Amino acid sequence: MPIEDDAYEKVRLELRRGSLVLAVLAALKHERYGYTLRKELADAGLAIDEGALYPMLRRLEAQGVLTSEWREEDKRNKRFYRLSSEGAALLAELTDEWRAINSSLNRLI
Amino acid sequence: MPIEDDAYEKVRLELRRGSLVLAVLAALKHERYGYTLRKELADAGLAIDEGALYPMLRRLEAQGVLTSEWREEDKRNKRFYRLSSEGAALLAELTDEWRAINSSLNRLI
Repeated sequence: MPIEDDAYEKVRLELRRGSLVLAVLAALKHERYGYTLRKELADAGLAIDEGALYPMLRRLEAQGVLTSEWREEDKRNKRFYRLSSEGAALLAELTDEWRAINSSLNRLI
Repeated sequence: MPIEDDAYEKVRLELRRGSLVLAVLAALKHERYGYTLRKELADAGLAIDEGALYPMLRRLEAQGVLTSEWREEDKRNKRFYRLSSEGAALLAELTDEWRAINSSLNRLI
């Protein structure tokens, strides 16, 4: 029975999804607005749709992980995001977790 | 605002979930039954509940990624699982994907 593309795609997305939160937190050690954040992630090889990024940012802000602020830049109002101190602590914990998962996977693969 | 443990736990689980499929596929390059599979994953540092593992195995088998076979061993009937050739191809692709995600995260962190 051949594997449907859908099934492969689903597993691949699951693999990326967990990493994306970590990537967003890491990118927001420096203040970014939506466009520059997406560009930084895409340049690193982790492209993310606006439709996935903005709900994630709202959720992380509601959880106290991020703060955001509207500010004018180049005559346009932009919403700037940055990690909170709680977010920095979460990033450190998740980074440890990610390294632990990697070392587990390296043992298995 | 402090981060609730729930929120942290949710993100942590998301990070693990995607890796678990990859870990299960990697472990099933060799034939295993449920207990030995769970033990191998736990020994590698990726403990997984029976309630999460068995539905995943059923889904992967329905997708053609795994095959399974009931056989008697030590006078008990056990269901043995093993990667199909399609599963081996999927494992190779996911491993590449995982390395790409890792190199992206390493750039960002």
